[in-house]
Amino acid sequence: MPKEDGGMPQLKSLYQAMRYACLNPGKRLRPTLCLLCAEAVGGEALAAIEVACAVEMIHCFSLIHDDLPALDNDDLRRGLPSVHKKFGEAVAVLSGDALIGLAFEVLSRAKGKPERVLECLRRLTEAIGVDGLVGGETLDILSEGEVPNREVVQFIHSRKTGALFAASCAAGAAIGGGSAGDVQSLHQYGDELGLAFQITDDLLNQSSSENQLGKSAGSDLAREKMTYPAAFGEDVARDMAMEAVQRAQQYALHVPKMQSELASLALFAVERLS
Amino acid sequence: MPKEDGGMPQLKSLYQAMRYACLNPGKRLRPTLCLLCAEAVGGEALAAIEVACAVEMIHCFSLIHDDLPALDNDDLRRGLPSVHKKFGEAVAVLSGDALIGLAFEVLSRAKGKPERVLECLRRLTEAIGVDGLVGGETLDILSEGEVPNREVVQFIHSRKTGALFAASCAAGAAIGGGSAGDVQSLHQYGDELGLAFQITDDLLNQSSSENQLGKSAGSDLAREKMTYPAAFGEDVARDMAMEAVQRAQQYALHVPKMQSELASLALFAVERLS
Repeated sequence: MPKEDGGMPQLKSLYQAMRYACLNPGKRLRPTLCLLCAEAVGGEALAAIEVACAVEMIHCFSLIHDDLPALDNDDLRRGLPSVHKKFGEAVAVLSGDALIGLAFEVLSRAKGKPERVLECLRRLTEAIGVDGLVGGETLDILSEGEVPNREVVQFIHSRKTGALFAASCAAGAAIGGGSAGDVQSLHQYGDELGLAFQITDDLLNQSSSENQLGKSAGSDLAREKMTYPAAFGEDVARDMAMEAVQRAQQYALHVPKMQSELASLALFAVERLS
Repeated sequence: MPKEDGGMPQLKSLYQAMRYACLNPGKRLRPTLCLLCAEAVGGEALAAIEVACAVEMIHCFSLIHDDLPALDNDDLRRGLPSVHKKFGEAVAVLSGDALIGLAFEVLSRAKGKPERVLECLRRLTEAIGVDGLVGGETLDILSEGEVPNREVVQFIHSRKTGALFAASCAAGAAIGGGSAGDVQSLHQYGDELGLAFQITDDLLNQSSSENQLGKSAGSDLAREKMTYPAAFGEDVARDMAMEAVQRAQQYALHVPKMQSELASLALFAVERLS
């Protein structure tokens, strides 16, 4: 992460915005998964450090851009002003762009076999574009105000959350030296974990909105958003999250090591509900 | 380039915006340089096709974002509505993001030795971040309204133009199998060509603004922008462009093949002035 101003004091806010977006208090779930999956296939966690850093920078880039006024228009992120509120919109757009460049620059210098690094590149880039973060966010924005629809909700969240979770796990396994089967199992594990995590987030957000607004679960307001509880109902959504955790745990059984750690992490996704 | 809507009709505008930004009438100078430099080191142009596509997508991503209202606020690009004017700001931000993801996804599937592909990745990503497109654009925006300053002008344009020109040439040479010396010579060639090109663009833009506004060369208006003629004066800027072409031509002499083609392309940069 660049520390200074690149020799031009005017650029200080760009460097500050990049650090602000990446080094704030966050769970670091995706890079943790990446490191854990490298170990799960018998590799060293440290072998995946550049890949894990790239994963977190990709995640942070997407949050900066999603928060922009023209997109989700969120003034707060993790309880703090979002990047565009703090540094202005131009620096927000540009710091996101710089982070995605830096993510792949760091990846280009990853230790490990070049074929494996390129596999990580392929998996992470697939998780960004039209079949990943960008496709999910675009549909989320363009379907705003529509009646929640199960197919649309699943499409949005498999891309906004599932794709990068899956790619983080698969890339960690790939750089850790896993077999094609291990990489695939951990890709599926990440995908299911992402689903469990997203449904849980939706349920928690719904409860907190209801508490704030004193509205009932079936209110028009809750129904305006493309969330799992809005599209499937709260009870079915809870069951879906638990089933996703169970499937994730099954996939974890396929890998050589760390099965219990992977299983516990999967359970953590839904434990926040109780 | 994706053609359809990924199975969700709502996403059609995202796909359309990506195609609109990349497949419009443009000179395609950077990808042409990339292919030419692969040949210049004795490789096949076709070996560099994925790298050349990545280069053009990176260029188009940066144009979409630079045109945004919060950045340069340009309604027109190459005589047509800019992406945000045609598709809205949200789709403009997201189509730029999707293009940078797709650029590196295409690169991850490049034929050629994995070590060479990773060298291309490193060179292209270095040309994007704080030392490349983003750093240049950020300084350009943050120094708006300041009196043109030679150091700032050179910093901005070496990053906004020079960095991707240089990386396009170096990456083409790398994937074409060039020696470290050839790759370096072509990097320098691209850097000088980018400089010549930028100065020429500045001079042409200044003439057209003067014609439109009936202002003299030293007007306050011309002085507001961080351009070579504004910072160095028109005559010095012309000399600088010619000297950059000559240095580019010298670097072209170092490579095994295509010296005359590379020299002609360098001259093309400034011929537009006559």
